[in-house]
Amino acid sequence: MKRTLYSLICFSVLILCVSPCIAGELKTVKLDEPQTQGGKPLMEVLKNRSSSRAFTGQSLSRRQLSNLLWAAFGINRPESGKRTAPSAMNRQEIDVYAALPDGLYLYDAKAHALKQVLADDIRGMAGTQPFVKDAAVNLIYVADFEKMKGVSGEDRMLYAGASAGFIGENVYLYCASEGLAVVIRASMDKPALAKRMGLRVDQRIVSFTVCRVSEKTDR
Amino acid sequence: MKRTLYSLICFSVLILCVSPCIAGELKTVKLDEPQTQGGKPLMEVLKNRSSSRAFTGQSLSRRQLSNLLWAAFGINRPESGKRTAPSAMNRQEIDVYAALPDGLYLYDAKAHALKQVLADDIRGMAGTQPFVKDAAVNLIYVADFEKMKGVSGEDRMLYAGASAGFIGENVYLYCASEGLAVVIRASMDKPALAKRMGLRVDQRIVSFTVCRVSEKTDR
Repeated sequence: MKRTLYSLICFSVLILCVSPCIAGELKTVKLDEPQTQGGKPLMEVLKNRSSSRAFTGQSLSRRQLSNLLWAAFGINRPESGKRTAPSAMNRQEIDVYAALPDGLYLYDAKAHALKQVLADDIRGMAGTQPFVKDAAVNLIYVADFEKMKGVSGEDRMLYAGASAGFIGENVYLYCASEGLAVVIRASMDKPALAKRMGLRVDQRIVSFTVCRVSEKTDR
Repeated sequence: MKRTLYSLICFSVLILCVSPCIAGELKTVKLDEPQTQGGKPLMEVLKNRSSSRAFTGQSLSRRQLSNLLWAAFGINRPESGKRTAPSAMNRQEIDVYAALPDGLYLYDAKAHALKQVLADDIRGMAGTQPFVKDAAVNLIYVADFEKMKGVSGEDRMLYAGASAGFIGENVYLYCASEGLAVVIRASMDKPALAKRMGLRVDQRIVSFTVCRVSEKTDR
């Protein structure tokens, strides 16, 4: 009995030691400073905005990934922490996740960094089409209902949809400016993806953007 | 009895004659050709995107109104009729209404024109704050559920919200490029406004953008 208890304690200690080690493997990637100047003129960008599934297998450059995330929902007024996309009552209820070949990351706008959440490639969980699993990056927009207290029913879905829409349009326009191929999608096995991502019950996947280097450009 | 019937017929004929005359007073305004080049560089526009309620009483110029509506949800690929903002399955379920001092207009993207729906100033119905009723233009985003058959429940609200979000962000960025003040809002007496606009029961007001000449600019 004493021996079993001793083994159990040792085993528990071992687990406690190993858990932080596993967690420690998850990295934080500081992104390059975003470029807050440049890009194509807005009206030309709007003229070129489109959905495209004509992808090559290339990755985005470090600079492009940094600019893409900042354009999407970065902080554009550091003094107030306000963002490139609006949200009702400045709730900032959307979390942007980036599914990359080496894992799933949460975008930390304040630090302009990517915090790894999973070390697995889950790009293929965001849809069955081949262009989804081979994307350079899949951005997943998750609404945090914890931040939307007092908003319920239809309005909550409407606001969450709109907030993700603002961000999604920024991504579209950044891709139009950079000559990247992009498409926004909403249908997928959301419960399975939410479980894999380890989301809480009050976090809801809204939609996601598949972003790749376009066939039409040599960048 | 015969006389009453005769009077009734005359009265009906009179109403039939008058109705088209009243409808005929509602005008269609052809907008200037939109400028599909120019504007500030995208990253600078994203840096300047913000919500502002610091408005002056100035109107938008004809050119600005034309560009604003085209940027919002104009046709950017005339060969396919596709738009500056995406929508799930290309349903294009959002109708953009413009509440101007001389009436309410429906934006006809194909003709790039404004079709008058009401000859009254209903800007003040889109909120109680003074900046709402004095706006140069209030854009009202209305989801047409008739175009969203097969989508129901939470998803319908989510998609409608996202579609309005894409458009709303285009408006934000156009205003950031032009130095116009803009704020998006969602809370208002929607049933009263829907009734005044003459919407069908399967048309739903999603949100609206208040757009004015900013105090910060001399344009």
